[in-house]
Amino acid sequence: MPYVNIKITREGATAAQKAQLIAGVTELLRDVLGKNPATTVVVIDEVETDSWGIGGESITVRRQQGR
Amino acid sequence: MPYVNIKITREGATAAQKAQLIAGVTELLRDVLGKNPATTVVVIDEVETDSWGIGGESITVRRQQGR
Amino acid sequence: MPYVNIKITREGATAAQKAQLIAGVTELLRDVLGKNPATTVVVIDEVETDSWGIGGESITVRRQQGR
Amino acid sequence: MPYVNIKITREGATAAQKAQLIAGVTELLRDVLGKNPATTVVVIDEVETDSWGIGGESITVRRQQGR
Amino acid sequence: MPYVNIKITREGATAAQKAQLIAGVTELLRDVLGKNPATTVVVIDEVETDSWGIGGESITVRRQQGR
Amino acid sequence: MPYVNIKITREGATAAQKAQLIAGVTELLRDVLGKNPATTVVVIDEVETDSWGIGGESITVRRQQGR
Repeated sequence: MPYVNIKITREGATAAQKAQLIAGVTELLRDVLGKNPATTVVVIDEVETDSWGIGGESITVRRQQGR
Repeated sequence: MPYVNIKITREGATAAQKAQLIAGVTELLRDVLGKNPATTVVVIDEVETDSWGIGGESITVRRQQGR
Repeated sequence: MPYVNIKITREGATAAQKAQLIAGVTELLRDVLGKNPATTVVVIDEVETDSWGIGGESITVRRQQGR
Repeated sequence: MPYVNIKITREGATAAQKAQLIAGVTELLRDVLGKNPATTVVVIDEVETDSWGIGGESITVRRQQGR
Repeated sequence: MPYVNIKITREGATAAQKAQLIAGVTELLRDVLGKNPATTVVVIDEVETDSWGIGGESITVRRQQGR
Repeated sequence: MPYVNIKITREGATAAQKAQLIAGVTELLRDVLGKNPATTVVVIDEVETDSWGIGGESITVRRQQGR
């Protein structure tokens, strides 16, 4: 029954990588807490780099500066 | 004053259907808890089927298998 | 498969009222979009009135002023 | 370490405006609570006007009526 | 830089189990997408069983029925 | 109409500090994007330090190590 929301910047994650995240998180919740995979929901949000900030700056700006 | 976030897979919900969800949830909160519709906020997020998982698999994979 | 998050202020909603919200939202998603109730997840968060703001003020302050 | 999620309707916010939101919120959390800007994360979601409701109506409908 | 929110019912998860979830999700994001652990944020929300619904019923009711 | 969710660790933020966050974010959205304060909603979530992770560790562990 858990619900997991993963937010990442939109920088080219593939369907295969997202499938790995979904499988991996579901397995983790089964292993650590015994949660039933059948009702474990995972939602991945990809966010534009202009719309994600850390350290008071957008990721767009940080990427331009090589960080 | 309530805030409601509805997440569904992006599979063709129309503006009319979204309007029904907005109206229906707002009415439900008024009927059950007496919440003021004027300040009830509803946000609908549509998520790609690659980015939604249940049972450890993406919805894309499940749809391909006829589930 | 939908996921719904309802946020309300913590002002005494009962288990019976929460059950009505869960049933009502699940039914709405089935009626409007044909979503399967078996995998519709609803999570209700109750938030202290000090921690909820609208119009630039907390709900605590608004309640004190009879709003 | 705070995490801030700002949801607005998708109505033309520019990268510069989003940068101002990111900088402003990060500064606010440092000033009010002494939070470290280096680990303050801000995520801005822009939502279609069809998918945002208030008062039981979508923003699309409200905009059409000049509200 | 990813942000992960894990929602589970409040049914006795220990600090050690939460630490395993935090470590496991952070590792998964590094392994699958090369994300930097130093800026990966994980937030776990525990929700009362009255406030979590699936299949149109609260978890409290489902637990009482041995499900 | 914006909705802002601020998540911080539960480490003693006062009602006055939360009021400052609510007022400050509401003002920021008015100044940067011209958003109407009357319908700007701010919700602050305080999360136990056991339930918040960064760098693969909980905040509880980091605080014990003087970080």
